[in-house]
Amino acid sequence: MDVDVVVIGAGLAGLVTARDLIRSGLDVAVLEARTRVGGRVLNRVLSDGTVVEIGGQWVGPTQDRLESLAAELGVATFPTFDDGENVLVVRGRQRRYRGAIPRLPRHVLADLGQAQLRLDRMARHVPLEAPWSAPRAKTWDGQTVDTWIRRRMRTRQGRDMFRLGVASVFAAEAAELSLLDFLFTSHSGGLLDRLFNVAGGAQERRFVGGSQVLAEALATRVGESVRLGCPVRGIRHDSESVTAHADGGVLVRARRGVVSIPPALAARVIYDPPLPAGRDQLTQRTPMGSVIKVMAAYDEPFWRADGLTGQATSDRGPVRLTFDNSPPSGSPGVLLGFMEGDEARQAGRWTEGRRRQAVLECFARAFGPRAGAAREYVEMDWSDEEWTRGCYGAHLPPGTWTQFGPALREPCGRLHWAGTETATVWAGYMDGAVRSGERVAAEVAAALRDQG
Amino acid sequence: MDVDVVVIGAGLAGLVTARDLIRSGLDVAVLEARTRVGGRVLNRVLSDGTVVEIGGQWVGPTQDRLESLAAELGVATFPTFDDGENVLVVRGRQRRYRGAIPRLPRHVLADLGQAQLRLDRMARHVPLEAPWSAPRAKTWDGQTVDTWIRRRMRTRQGRDMFRLGVASVFAAEAAELSLLDFLFTSHSGGLLDRLFNVAGGAQERRFVGGSQVLAEALATRVGESVRLGCPVRGIRHDSESVTAHADGGVLVRARRGVVSIPPALAARVIYDPPLPAGRDQLTQRTPMGSVIKVMAAYDEPFWRADGLTGQATSDRGPVRLTFDNSPPSGSPGVLLGFMEGDEARQAGRWTEGRRRQAVLECFARAFGPRAGAAREYVEMDWSDEEWTRGCYGAHLPPGTWTQFGPALREPCGRLHWAGTETATVWAGYMDGAVRSGERVAAEVAAALRDQG
Repeated sequence: MDVDVVVIGAGLAGLVTARDLIRSGLDVAVLEARTRVGGRVLNRVLSDGTVVEIGGQWVGPTQDRLESLAAELGVATFPTFDDGENVLVVRGRQRRYRGAIPRLPRHVLADLGQAQLRLDRMARHVPLEAPWSAPRAKTWDGQTVDTWIRRRMRTRQGRDMFRLGVASVFAAEAAELSLLDFLFTSHSGGLLDRLFNVAGGAQERRFVGGSQVLAEALATRVGESVRLGCPVRGIRHDSESVTAHADGGVLVRARRGVVSIPPALAARVIYDPPLPAGRDQLTQRTPMGSVIKVMAAYDEPFWRADGLTGQATSDRGPVRLTFDNSPPSGSPGVLLGFMEGDEARQAGRWTEGRRRQAVLECFARAFGPRAGAAREYVEMDWSDEEWTRGCYGAHLPPGTWTQFGPALREPCGRLHWAGTETATVWAGYMDGAVRSGERVAAEVAAALRDQG
Repeated sequence: MDVDVVVIGAGLAGLVTARDLIRSGLDVAVLEARTRVGGRVLNRVLSDGTVVEIGGQWVGPTQDRLESLAAELGVATFPTFDDGENVLVVRGRQRRYRGAIPRLPRHVLADLGQAQLRLDRMARHVPLEAPWSAPRAKTWDGQTVDTWIRRRMRTRQGRDMFRLGVASVFAAEAAELSLLDFLFTSHSGGLLDRLFNVAGGAQERRFVGGSQVLAEALATRVGESVRLGCPVRGIRHDSESVTAHADGGVLVRARRGVVSIPPALAARVIYDPPLPAGRDQLTQRTPMGSVIKVMAAYDEPFWRADGLTGQATSDRGPVRLTFDNSPPSGSPGVLLGFMEGDEARQAGRWTEGRRRQAVLECFARAFGPRAGAAREYVEMDWSDEEWTRGCYGAHLPPGTWTQFGPALREPCGRLHWAGTETATVWAGYMDGAVRSGERVAAEVAAALRDQG
């Protein structure tokens, strides 16, 4: 036997798994397809040396395992810039407002508020360990979020805003999402305000040096165990061992295996023997969202001087959500924009030049003509990435949780499953990835102890 | 260059593609993972030598391309046994009725009739070449079929019967299906009566010798071009050529490639360079249905003497639909049962012994105690099949047609897509597979002529 455990994928989940298993005194090999660690967590260096996050980037309250990891690794956080007024762009006109609630007509705000209240009440009834056992699981899993919105929300603007909120969490359209999966995700992150907000929410703080430093520091701890540029193509497994076959003839034999890549990519590995029908069919039903993350750099964050946070919400795409993503020093100024769901799918077919122009037009509508004159533009279409194939994470379409749910985490013999998609708390977030790594490491260590 | 065109998969679609391309004077290689041809079309030989169909089996009116193929290959058809009364099992009690419409309370029949009328009217508005351009495409694709049923049908029994009808076509639950995909499939097959019925419908006739003889006869025509036991793992493609890499070091270089396997399996091939985001994400959203097809053999088709067709519909699983599947001679008697959608997913986790017992109990509830005493029992769980991973076909979950639809057939450079999932007429059926092969062969021949 080469090692005790072979881990497929060196994203946060895989690296945390390896860290914990090594701490338990086990031999571990981590095989990573890319020539870098971090998976969906990735820094980009601008031409002046400024580091920005082009993948997952935020940390917020109750993301305790991510916080704890950062503390352990000595990575500090700083607040997402949030001083001043936010912007709402409606029919090309900029409206400023303070706080989390946009300046919308009162009946629209009431519509949004009531929707959120109702959904939060429903979400509390979804057990995080077993969403399929929610009292109304079958009803909720048999409809899309869009169906719920159409039936329960009364204003067109409210529905539109809420759909945008949904897309901002899933990078997918309300029309694609199972209501049960939506409620699970919401409960998993501590209900909707926590998911949507900057202050007090999932977008509250950032990591000094960019979030990828977490993965890099972890990789240093895990040391020689990580092998980069090793895409695993096949996994043989039997009652005694697991053997991972990667490109270049790399072959690692272990007592147990942990697959910590998104389920849609786990489906593409050749398992010998093939996995049970329930697991295989689950992985036919775990599509990734679509997001193109873009940033534009300016000599300074000029919107701050105008009393603006850099946060804008727009009724028009392709960028409908922005944030101030300047480094802690505040120089250069960096505006961050998201194209999510259908906007990403459409813009993904354009040339980079056309996207850049459309993005800067969106920025200019929100922050004035200066925002149109960026000194640098960077973008990342996560759906184009061979080893991710979509972000932020997978969602489970209608009918999936209730028919295939248990297969998401249930080991298949000596194969165990990790990744943020398998988390019960903060599923789909970096914190969920860390938790999934901790859970699977404990699961594997116990299995090795009890069953070998 | 080894050949002009390499075809991946020797199901009906791949074999028809090869036949047509060879007729155009082109060199073709067909690489098939299994050691047999036919894909989802498969015969099983009972212990007395009787041939039964354990995969796709029926042909009906307007399935002209399948008919024409059978005529060309000299394969005759015979009618599905349909003389006598059908059986409806409700709360354990057997009720007999004549014709396609079960003996249900009048208000339930009205409910079912109106639902069908409405859905047929909607289906006619779905353009077969471009379902995403239907006038109400976004609304229909944003909801599940179950949502429509809950909102539009008034009786519990009507809803239950209709859900069973849906499962009988898709082998998936109404809760999983996009209403738009359902309407497309229905229109594609000529509306609901055509899909549901035996006489005048998709279950009207069978092939003498079992449907797989079609694939075998086709393979004979295609001859040396078919290589069995060659699972294709990778496809390199550039502006000049396509190279397929299969197990055992098999390598076929061609001017163009045709991938004629289900999209969920096409996703598992390694493309170099990787495919565009839209195509990749589509194939994350093409789950296969789940069906376990079972047959029980008896010395004679005793139900015929009782004046029964052998067709039963039950309110209780795991088998909720049965047919008489005896050979043309009428001896032995063979009852065919389907477990579909959730029933298949649950029963798939049982032992074969438990399934057999549950199936025979279902048969006995419909046809009396003699049906419980089968002399032979055979079954096939298509979700367990490594090279199919579900049947009857793929469906597109909510939001997929409207965001990813064109990628289903659109070639990626020199790669073309076939398979019944890509058909516009009788999509999901054997006839659709044949049509897709004919379409792609014409497409490839034209591309070779015009662009090389």
